[in-house]
Amino acid sequence: MAEEELIPEDEAFGITERLRADVLEAVEAEDGPGVAGLLDPLHAADVAHLLEQIDARQRRELLTVWPGGLEGEVLSELDESLREEVIEQLAPAELADAVRELESDDVVDLVEYLDEEQQEAVLDALDAGDRVLVEQALTYPEESAGRHMQSELVRAPEDWTVGDAIDYLRSDVILPDQFYHIILVDPRLKATGYVTLGRILSHPRATPLKRLTEDSFRTFHVEQDVEEVAQAINHYHMITAPVVDDDDRIVGVITIDDAMMFLEEEAEEDILRLAGVGEGSLSDRVIDTTKQRFPWLAVNLVTAILASLVIALFEETIAGLVALAVLMPIVASMGGNAGTQSLTVAVRALATRDLTTANVWRVIRREVLVGLINGAIFAVVMGVVGVVWFGSPMLGVVIAVAMVINLVVAGLAGTVIPVILERLGVDPALASGAFVTTVTDVVGFFAFLGLAAVWLL
Amino acid sequence: MAEEELIPEDEAFGITERLRADVLEAVEAEDGPGVAGLLDPLHAADVAHLLEQIDARQRRELLTVWPGGLEGEVLSELDESLREEVIEQLAPAELADAVRELESDDVVDLVEYLDEEQQEAVLDALDAGDRVLVEQALTYPEESAGRHMQSELVRAPEDWTVGDAIDYLRSDVILPDQFYHIILVDPRLKATGYVTLGRILSHPRATPLKRLTEDSFRTFHVEQDVEEVAQAINHYHMITAPVVDDDDRIVGVITIDDAMMFLEEEAEEDILRLAGVGEGSLSDRVIDTTKQRFPWLAVNLVTAILASLVIALFEETIAGLVALAVLMPIVASMGGNAGTQSLTVAVRALATRDLTTANVWRVIRREVLVGLINGAIFAVVMGVVGVVWFGSPMLGVVIAVAMVINLVVAGLAGTVIPVILERLGVDPALASGAFVTTVTDVVGFFAFLGLAAVWLL
Repeated sequence: MAEEELIPEDEAFGITERLRADVLEAVEAEDGPGVAGLLDPLHAADVAHLLEQIDARQRRELLTVWPGGLEGEVLSELDESLREEVIEQLAPAELADAVRELESDDVVDLVEYLDEEQQEAVLDALDAGDRVLVEQALTYPEESAGRHMQSELVRAPEDWTVGDAIDYLRSDVILPDQFYHIILVDPRLKATGYVTLGRILSHPRATPLKRLTEDSFRTFHVEQDVEEVAQAINHYHMITAPVVDDDDRIVGVITIDDAMMFLEEEAEEDILRLAGVGEGSLSDRVIDTTKQRFPWLAVNLVTAILASLVIALFEETIAGLVALAVLMPIVASMGGNAGTQSLTVAVRALATRDLTTANVWRVIRREVLVGLINGAIFAVVMGVVGVVWFGSPMLGVVIAVAMVINLVVAGLAGTVIPVILERLGVDPALASGAFVTTVTDVVGFFAFLGLAAVWLL
Repeated sequence: MAEEELIPEDEAFGITERLRADVLEAVEAEDGPGVAGLLDPLHAADVAHLLEQIDARQRRELLTVWPGGLEGEVLSELDESLREEVIEQLAPAELADAVRELESDDVVDLVEYLDEEQQEAVLDALDAGDRVLVEQALTYPEESAGRHMQSELVRAPEDWTVGDAIDYLRSDVILPDQFYHIILVDPRLKATGYVTLGRILSHPRATPLKRLTEDSFRTFHVEQDVEEVAQAINHYHMITAPVVDDDDRIVGVITIDDAMMFLEEEAEEDILRLAGVGEGSLSDRVIDTTKQRFPWLAVNLVTAILASLVIALFEETIAGLVALAVLMPIVASMGGNAGTQSLTVAVRALATRDLTTANVWRVIRREVLVGLINGAIFAVVMGVVGVVWFGSPMLGVVIAVAMVINLVVAGLAGTVIPVILERLGVDPALASGAFVTTVTDVVGFFAFLGLAAVWLL
């Protein structure tokens, strides 16, 4: 295949196919300085992406030829499924060098899914202060704000002025590598507001910080789901989300760049779950991928057999008129597709909180109406096809009526099933598809063959 | 339905069902001050969300009872499908008040899809300087960085020190409402790096700004796709992406909070396209939704008829053994599901640039192998079901072999078709589904019925 086609010329970021080829050539030639010369100038995210693109043998060779080259940032950027593999290949001193560069929240992300031995190796490489922060974060539940927050932050008494804040920042105090807000606290360390650095810099020294706080300010509990925090950051256009403990004391922040990553992961998960893929990435091994795909296919087999049982009820009808066997998948397939449309809209609307108790009946009514209208149109089309193809007007009527029934049911099931699953606490993205297509298959075959049995034979 | 169930108690953000009910009650009672009292303290994003939840009649009444209450921010947060409706109900003076509060990039987002008359009304409300900025932005292509950038930014000569920068920021200069970086420019205004405010504040006055620039710095052309810029912001953890003109001169910035919104929109689009829904939101009218859903259902009808034509080839075979009609949907359905799994992974991997020329053959091989393994497992299961259900060992063999063939083809088609579509410049999220399920239906029916015709009759 031509090299340039899968990544277009006007790419906004990432490494070129040319660069990747050069790196692999240098690796093949065991040209250490050559590899370093190509990789050292790259952003860690690009090095990680390159490692994900090449195969396991090439990765091993690259890490051998480029000793000490791997920064901690690259480990943090790397796909989870490859971290264990890459960490295994680093010498203990190399691993220690790499992780010492990272902020505590990045170390937490890095170690949380490592096996115990590797986790220990990484923790041992940290200095005592960082180790305490990481171990503290690991005590919070998975996917919680506490687990993923950055502990480094800047706070100030709420009665300070702009001048106080600037003097403080300009003093010898150690500041985080990146920060965008100063968080105001009352005497009990309760967070009461935040001020952006830009606002501080653009106001006179005498201005009280309290006068410059932002509307978007709100706090999140350490045990809050980090994806919810990320959604709130997006909803309110926040840059920093303050995380507080049970007493409302500020203990950390979730920053917008991390929030962006969590939201991306969530959308990705929803897409894959809707398709019955579960977790997983291109770097997974064949056996892992097979296992991920298997459960949904197994569920689908059961639902397909259910549909077949419905068909089996009408074996005699089909034996009497084989045209029914030819046409019946059309009704089921149209229902399945219409149902998938409705359920996808419903699942996403639930995820983004657009579908609520306030409008659920309106949405159900709309979906049913849409099913009715589209069903009527396709009923006419298929009625005509049935008559022309098989020369039987009554067959045309049967398929037309079955089509309308199935598309209305698809709209109804596609909305009601995700809503019910959500209320039951089951992830609707994961489970809706199986239920909805079972309904549309069963109803589709039953309506079509049942009407045929009554009206045609 | 109980009020509290669709939005759980521990919500991180948004309005409660209680508040919504109170607002509607006050609207019903035409209690203007009551409505204002409830809505004025809310963040604009929450007011917009409330307007999206209620129906058209309630929205009209709310806007009548709450005159002058609607801020510009609310318009900008509102779902596109509702903006025209809401703007129509505002008095010209009200509209003018609302839009004058907005930054120029928000006005662009607001007006770009309005009809000409409304666009004119909004532009007329702006002062001359803002109007020029907005009209300038509208000359860039839709979805380009230039169209969506914020023109307000802070730049500084690249040879300045920390002290120079602080003195400049503390002088009487007018600064943007929100900014996180100072962008360094050379004497020709070419952007050469950026420094965060946090770094400036935490270094001695004598430090040259050049020494504090960030690794993540890179510039984007005004005509670059804004979604690509957003992906780059996410990839490199940038807070601000500088946008430059043909001469590399800095003309604006895309900020991370806008990038987050673009990425969310993109993921949403992909999800809906994969399900054949196209654009659309819960607020759309029945007729719009029907139109959005129709094309994909029409495509599906054609592919379903194609599959039926394959079945029609074997009418005699089915007449000879009706069990075939009972079992054939199982093979097609399993293939369709396995194909959807593969194509979803491929489509997302293309979108996130994880699937490239470097690994496309590896991924195809993996998908085929996964299809082979899962196919073999389900072949055994269905073989046994075939024998037990219909008492024919040969029927078991036929369905087993057909199952393996179809799952291998599903893995192959599910990967190759999106890759080919991407190369042809067709959005693989939109078109892959129809092609892949056509392939798995046709192959599924043909393999199963064809083998049956040869081996069973």
